[in-house]
Amino acid sequence: MIEKITSATNARVKRLISLRKKAKLRKQEQVFLLEGERLFTDTPRAFIREIYVTEEYLKDRPEASMPAGCTILTEEIMRKVSDTETPQGVMCVAQMPSYQKEDLLGRSAKAEAGKAPLLLILENIQDPGNLGTMMRTAEAAGVTGVLLSKDTVDLFNPKTVRATMSAIFRVPFLYTDDLTGAIRSLRDEYGMQVYAAHLDASIPYDQADCTGPCAFLIGNEGNGLTDEAANAASSRVHIPMEGQIESLNAAMAAGILMFEASRQRRHGGM
Amino acid sequence: MIEKITSATNARVKRLISLRKKAKLRKQEQVFLLEGERLFTDTPRAFIREIYVTEEYLKDRPEASMPAGCTILTEEIMRKVSDTETPQGVMCVAQMPSYQKEDLLGRSAKAEAGKAPLLLILENIQDPGNLGTMMRTAEAAGVTGVLLSKDTVDLFNPKTVRATMSAIFRVPFLYTDDLTGAIRSLRDEYGMQVYAAHLDASIPYDQADCTGPCAFLIGNEGNGLTDEAANAASSRVHIPMEGQIESLNAAMAAGILMFEASRQRRHGGM
Repeated sequence: MIEKITSATNARVKRLISLRKKAKLRKQEQVFLLEGERLFTDTPRAFIREIYVTEEYLKDRPEASMPAGCTILTEEIMRKVSDTETPQGVMCVAQMPSYQKEDLLGRSAKAEAGKAPLLLILENIQDPGNLGTMMRTAEAAGVTGVLLSKDTVDLFNPKTVRATMSAIFRVPFLYTDDLTGAIRSLRDEYGMQVYAAHLDASIPYDQADCTGPCAFLIGNEGNGLTDEAANAASSRVHIPMEGQIESLNAAMAAGILMFEASRQRRHGGM
Repeated sequence: MIEKITSATNARVKRLISLRKKAKLRKQEQVFLLEGERLFTDTPRAFIREIYVTEEYLKDRPEASMPAGCTILTEEIMRKVSDTETPQGVMCVAQMPSYQKEDLLGRSAKAEAGKAPLLLILENIQDPGNLGTMMRTAEAAGVTGVLLSKDTVDLFNPKTVRATMSAIFRVPFLYTDDLTGAIRSLRDEYGMQVYAAHLDASIPYDQADCTGPCAFLIGNEGNGLTDEAANAASSRVHIPMEGQIESLNAAMAAGILMFEASRQRRHGGM
């Protein structure tokens, strides 16, 4: 027997809407919303706390194939709860993955042995789609971890989660209150080359050796890096550009840098 | 004396809204909307047909600094007309730039002499933001022109225009009814290497020589390239990926390929 919610004023419906809207509540409860068939299928079962589906969604699936404890929402309530205009009929409350600093360096049991750490460090990224795209691209480029300044947009924003294409469960990440301190520590204690992406840099990104332990530091979409963060890096690199474009989209710049590291590592050098 | 429109039912207001919403009308009239201070400033004056501003916007600017013939809209009407939630107080109707095939090959008077053509060919890209980001990145990577299949989203969609960061006025582009024929022509008549970005490719993108005349062919966000288009290319290339990500965002993939060509051209080889 599957429980069915038909009232939009139901306390659980209100909580789902709050989880969609409020980063603070997500952080307090250490849970977030996952929407759509694809994310639902890709998410490790251990992370899923609650499942909500529509009757329409269940129609195509034998009840036995659904995990125990799923709850039915009417189409109308699903639309109210959903972050998308055309919800796919399935939504979950999932537990946030949680990591330590060491996990970001690729030293977890799952990490490939002997692989040099490759970090993406983000300062105050504000666009949820950009952040999600960076996580997706980071996984594909073999990034071992993502470090985020505390004023970076919430990784568990529904738009960000969607854009990660499930990389949110596979790329270790950590928010830090002291980004500059963390950069110095990576540089001085862990011997990493921290390359700050900076329009004023004299070194082109493809002249920076990325075969050893290294990190790319990317700043805010509109304002770039703070001087404090840029000064804490080992050096500054830029992406040479033609035409009259002043800067690339932040996610695009991060992707080009990460895949240059990936290219160098496949080729064993610059 | 500046004309002021205060009624939302004014015929010109209705036309502006139609120009925002309807690709067909934009195409018929060969004009489109530009929104915001930055685009307004960056756009060559010869392309601007009409200018609309709010009184708030004029406050900070001496009337003399505004080009003749601008029209005032109330804040409320500007919000109605605008594609953004917080309009910046200035909107223009601009003429579409128009190009011939030869322009895409960098053979216009403005193009750098002796530079090998570098094309981006897009099949059925559907996300306006992706298309705009691709134009912006294309300019920065030194792409000489962008060829678009006729079912690709309209380049003059307000979201696309915003994302191009004015590259829409600087990168030659052409919609074609016969993408496959155009690819064959570029390959056979113009001697270009046309590289299709394809998940099933055996050649990594960084093993493809991009120093000569070449083009990258990118497919739809969800479905990739049609077989017809992919088969018309000279060869297929892929971006090697780690982790469990199945594909990159289409704009990201295009950006990584275009900047690999830029890198090779700066280094004089792979």
